[in-house]
Order: sequence, then structure tokens, then C-alpha cells
Amino acid sequence: MNFKTSDLEKMEKQTAVHLINSLGGFKSVALVGTSNVQGNTNLSIFSSFFHIGANPPLIGMIFRPSPPERDTMRNILDTGFYTINHINEQIYQQAHQTSARYNKEISEFDAAGLSAEYKNNFPAPFVLESNVQLGIKFKEKTAISINNTTMIIGEIVQIFIPEDCLSEDGFLDLEKANTVTCSGLDSYHKTMQLDRLSYAKPDKEITSLLKS
Amino acid sequence: MNFKTSDLEKMEKQTAVHLINSLGGFKSVALVGTSNVQGNTNLSIFSSFFHIGANPPLIGMIFRPSPPERDTMRNILDTGFYTINHINEQIYQQAHQTSARYNKEISEFDAAGLSAEYKNNFPAPFVLESNVQLGIKFKEKTAISINNTTMIIGEIVQIFIPEDCLSEDGFLDLEKANTVTCSGLDSYHKTMQLDRLSYAKPDKEITSLLKS
Repeated sequence: MNFKTSDLEKMEKQTAVHLINSLGGFKSVALVGTSNVQGNTNLSIFSSFFHIGANPPLIGMIFRPSPPERDTMRNILDTGFYTINHINEQIYQQAHQTSARYNKEISEFDAAGLSAEYKNNFPAPFVLESNVQLGIKFKEKTAISINNTTMIIGEIVQIFIPEDCLSEDGFLDLEKANTVTCSGLDSYHKTMQLDRLSYAKPDKEITSLLKS
Repeated sequence: MNFKTSDLEKMEKQTAVHLINSLGGFKSVALVGTSNVQGNTNLSIFSSFFHIGANPPLIGMIFRPSPPERDTMRNILDTGFYTINHINEQIYQQAHQTSARYNKEISEFDAAGLSAEYKNNFPAPFVLESNVQLGIKFKEKTAISINNTTMIIGEIVQIFIPEDCLSEDGFLDLEKANTVTCSGLDSYHKTMQLDRLSYAKPDKEITSLLKS
């Protein structure tokens, strides 16, 4: 079945939003923890993370247009730090709840029943219930003028992971860490590993890294 | 277990690359099809896609630094069009093979045993074996100076999906379409849906959209 631009334009708006949000494939979904300059915490779910580079270790994310003010972005710019916390099967419903539009006085940590965790003198709150926690230092903000969104790039400066999920070659077993993925606006999925594949070369057959 | 910036700097380089590539969570992974101005096809796997907006429908991706020349980016800039093709369980090994560094004369379609499909007068080749195929029109290129990568943003102008995967509300069931996800540099995963959750509101409990 085929849709082109003119079909999308004729589609009911929210239907098109669901469809377009599904088309990119399964997404990285995680909770971003921040605090404002007064120390009040904020927690919000995002599904627009992407790897930018390993050296230095950089991760990007997209913010929707302002106004309305985006508290998470405001806090990142004001304090320079944020956390990215993977979502697991035990907390995905609470994580989803953080997308509700709460009043500024309410912390989404409290509203969703998740716990703020401070450690290693990192200024932003981690999510205690998350198995993979990243402390991020803000690096740059880029306006995407085509639709008034904003890209924020940060450097990974703190990593907390379960020791038994780290392979000798550096691969982190996210499935063992119970990290979930999402699709569309509201669908959550756990995963089943098919394989890890060898580095591809032109004249060599790919082999499984798991059967060695 | 905890790593900080100084630990990463001391880590063996390829180990750090594996780890950092794992930290973002499960990723959108797909094959990008292009052709050069002579009509020679190119196919390459990427895992750095992200949703930028639904209206207009925009999708972003990151290219690693040049040089070496990135054929896919060159073709996108020269022709203005590309395709994004979801990877399914039947073709993930072939998809992975497209990451090998082939000579310019060789099409990765042939090398990996995948078929170029032209339709609807769209100028770039789709992957016949893919169940979800997107035709993309190049919109803008942004240099990310912090590590010399490049962000390419395109508009989704053609959508090909299996009819039985589209829900009434616009949600596309990627699991039914057999789309896979990846983690790290080389791990592929299929998914098991946990739930679809209702739109979150401050004073309302989240419900499942699947149990109605």
C-alpha cells in the first residue's frame, strides 16, 4: 500500500502523526533527568536519541518547537548537565506517564513514582530504577530552522551499567540489562537477539560472533 | 559498575567504540538506497535515523566524517533523493554485509544479494526485499563541527507499507512488518510488543490501547 505527500496532506492530522512517527523504525527511548537552578527535578521521556560519535562520546537528541517552553531543554541550558536513563520492562508505564503535561511545581519523578538518585557529584538526577544510566555534559545547541525544532548534543561523561552486561570487547548487552525499545508514539517492545555479526569485509562471509 | 571520561580515555580504542555505540539504546536500523548521476546504485546500512517532525514529515540521519568520501551522501547531494528501507529477519545478514568497503564499481545491491526496485517514478532505488520502504527528498545538510560529522534531513515523500500492518489510528505495526532493531555495532534483535499505552495526562491512569 502506497502513500505519497498529497495522501499524507489529506489524512486526518493525528493519524498522520501516528504513521510518520512509526516510519523511522524502532527507537531509542529513555528518560532525561534534569534539575533547574533551584534544584527542582524534572523527568521526561524522549525517543529521539542518536549516536554522533565515540571519540569524544557524543549523543544527540531533538526537542520539539518552543513555545511552549520545554522545561528539560531550559534546565539543560541553565545547568549544563542532564542524565539519560534507559527504560526497562518494570518501569515503562511510569516512564510513559512522564509525558503528561504537569504543572511546573510538580516533579515528574514524584508524579510517575520514580526515584531521583544523585551520585559521583554529578549535578543532574539519575533514575534509580534504571539499569543503564548516563551522565551527560551539554556541548552544543543547533536550531533546525526547517521546522523550528532544536538539536542538543551532549558528551557522555558518566556511565553506570550492570557489570554482568558488559562483554569483553566492549559490547553492552542491552537485552540482558532489560532495556526496552519503542515504536510510534506509544508502543513499547522488549527484544530477542537474533545474532551478533562479524565485521563485514568485501570478500569474506559474515559469521556469528556468538557461536565462537 | 561506573566509567567516567578518564576511564574511557584509558580504554582500548575499539572497546570504547563498542561500548559508546551500545549506550544510546536500541536503534533504528535501515538500508539507504541511492544512485549516482550515471545511475549506478549504492546501498548502505545506517543506524542513526531520528524523527524530526510529522508535518512536514522529516527524518534525520548522521554521516561520519569525510574523507573518506561517503558515497551515499555524495549521491544524495548530487541527485536529491534517497530511499530508507526497513530491515527484516530474512535480510539482516545481507544488510550487515553492505557495511563492507566495496570498490566504487561494485553495487552493494549485487554484493549483498539484494534487489533494486524502481517504482512510482521515484529516482532512487528501493530494496525489493524490504517490507517498509520510504522515498525521501533531500532537504538540508548541517555540519556538526564538534566532530566533523554531518546531519542530513529529508522529507518522506513516498511510503510503501504492508496494508495489514496499518492500524486505524495510523500506528504502523512494525513488529508485524518484521522490522528488526540493532544495538551496538553488530547486534540485531527482533521485538516482542509489551503494550501500546494511552496518551498520558496528569490526573488519569494510563491504560492499554490493546485491551479495548
